[in-house]
Amino acid sequence: MTWKTTNNEMRGMLTAETIHQVRQALEPSRGKHTIGFVPTMGALHAGHVELIRTARRECATVVVSLFVNPIQFSPNEDFQQYPRPLEDDLRICNDAGVDLVFVPSVEQMYPTSCRTAVHVSDITESLCGASRPGHFDGVTTVVAKLFNIIQPDRAYFGQKDAQQALVVRKMIADLNFPIRLHVCPTARDAAGLALSSRNRYLSDEQRNQALCLYQALRLAKEAIGSGERDSEPIIKKMRQIIEVAGPAKIDYISIVDSDTVQAVRRIDRPVLIALAVQIGPARLIDNIMLDAAGREITIKDLAIQA
Amino acid sequence: MTWKTTNNEMRGMLTAETIHQVRQALEPSRGKHTIGFVPTMGALHAGHVELIRTARRECATVVVSLFVNPIQFSPNEDFQQYPRPLEDDLRICNDAGVDLVFVPSVEQMYPTSCRTAVHVSDITESLCGASRPGHFDGVTTVVAKLFNIIQPDRAYFGQKDAQQALVVRKMIADLNFPIRLHVCPTARDAAGLALSSRNRYLSDEQRNQALCLYQALRLAKEAIGSGERDSEPIIKKMRQIIEVAGPAKIDYISIVDSDTVQAVRRIDRPVLIALAVQIGPARLIDNIMLDAAGREITIKDLAIQA
Repeated sequence: MTWKTTNNEMRGMLTAETIHQVRQALEPSRGKHTIGFVPTMGALHAGHVELIRTARRECATVVVSLFVNPIQFSPNEDFQQYPRPLEDDLRICNDAGVDLVFVPSVEQMYPTSCRTAVHVSDITESLCGASRPGHFDGVTTVVAKLFNIIQPDRAYFGQKDAQQALVVRKMIADLNFPIRLHVCPTARDAAGLALSSRNRYLSDEQRNQALCLYQALRLAKEAIGSGERDSEPIIKKMRQIIEVAGPAKIDYISIVDSDTVQAVRRIDRPVLIALAVQIGPARLIDNIMLDAAGREITIKDLAIQA
Repeated sequence: MTWKTTNNEMRGMLTAETIHQVRQALEPSRGKHTIGFVPTMGALHAGHVELIRTARRECATVVVSLFVNPIQFSPNEDFQQYPRPLEDDLRICNDAGVDLVFVPSVEQMYPTSCRTAVHVSDITESLCGASRPGHFDGVTTVVAKLFNIIQPDRAYFGQKDAQQALVVRKMIADLNFPIRLHVCPTARDAAGLALSSRNRYLSDEQRNQALCLYQALRLAKEAIGSGERDSEPIIKKMRQIIEVAGPAKIDYISIVDSDTVQAVRRIDRPVLIALAVQIGPARLIDNIMLDAAGREITIKDLAIQA
């Protein structure tokens, strides 16, 4: 084996930098044990740890990838600044019982003449897809590559990136990947802020301000729970909460059909309530998903549209 | 097992109509034996049989798919008329020692809301890609689906559809499919006509006329063998051969770089010489690939552009 365990305390965990190393390392498990896969961009937080722990409970072999994927960032976005605390990430993986960490270089994943893209249409056009052109093509392409490299039986994504999870779910179904998708609930800090690697960009004051995202979502849930069925007044109130909290640039506040990801005026089916707000240096997203009666659900409660 | 062997003489061969059946049937082989896969649109001829025989020699388990893929046809093309001689195809597969034939319905492959496409850029834009918009997206999408359903170790394609083989090769490399691609030489009848399911559309007279495709390719090879290095006069002479042979609509006659599939004026590298000609009801294609010295090569002789 040409790759290394990172230090003596991590002797159980392998770190692979090349595709060839990953395939070699997983060869003995293939077809014998369940392989669970948690794709990440690193800068791991308790939300990632929860994904890894879920995989650990359900699978004999757990693989985590740490890869800041350039093709899902627009030129004006934070690809360069995105945090890459590799040593911390490896320690977190090791402590959570990961078997194999895949840490490829950009060159390993995208040799110069890469010309193939995976595109999911329709559900990628609203929400983050509208404000981040090409973003989801970048996500589905890298996830398809990682799926083919790792060939997991199960893959773990977070509900925090709800549209991403819906898009990956659609790709898995449409391209017949033999992979079961698990979407785990959004992890939040004690005050309700959704955990995100981008929270590192925030000052204490901005972090406090950022609580308005979840406050707005809770207000929406309460309004629907009280019988409100029109999207417009709910979105208006959510906007007010964001605006009074401090200086912010609202990218979107939307109530969409949880399957089609198209805006709904009347809340008479399961909906995703999602928002993206720029606070200082950080573009933050958050969401909740509700059934027609206003009860909180997760993506796993949705039947896949075949 | 819910599926059937087609008749008593074919008791060794399984026929699966659903994805679930394919996965069940291949489960015991997975990770233990080499699985070879020959994707076809049926209407099998000796060229397909050669692909199957090559797979049979190299793999413990041989899977053939018979599926006329609607999404690679334009509305004005021959999807409806495309021959579907299922009984003959099953007999040919059985005689060639196939283990599993996958014969899905269109609904099985494309449930109503399929929204995911695999797109290879650049090398899909010339030749057949120019005259058949969307064709190669249809090919790569269905091949990606079939790869994920069958999960073969090796896949077999014919050099006759050279651009298709190059595109699939690119997709395999770019998306990291763990599959080795084998491209087998074009099978021809005694007179030199490249075997094609669409030859069935030809009258005896048209079939005779269609020999002009290979005659034109041989002329090109001879010209390059004699030292000609300019594409233009070669293409001009090829065009003359097609035109004197009878009424035909030339779609393209091109000399392209065998890696980029872009037209070359000067033949100073490996080239693909390809043509598409409509003769009566049949759009026919043929090609040869030559190295810089004018010697015939196949796609397997090309190093993949990483």
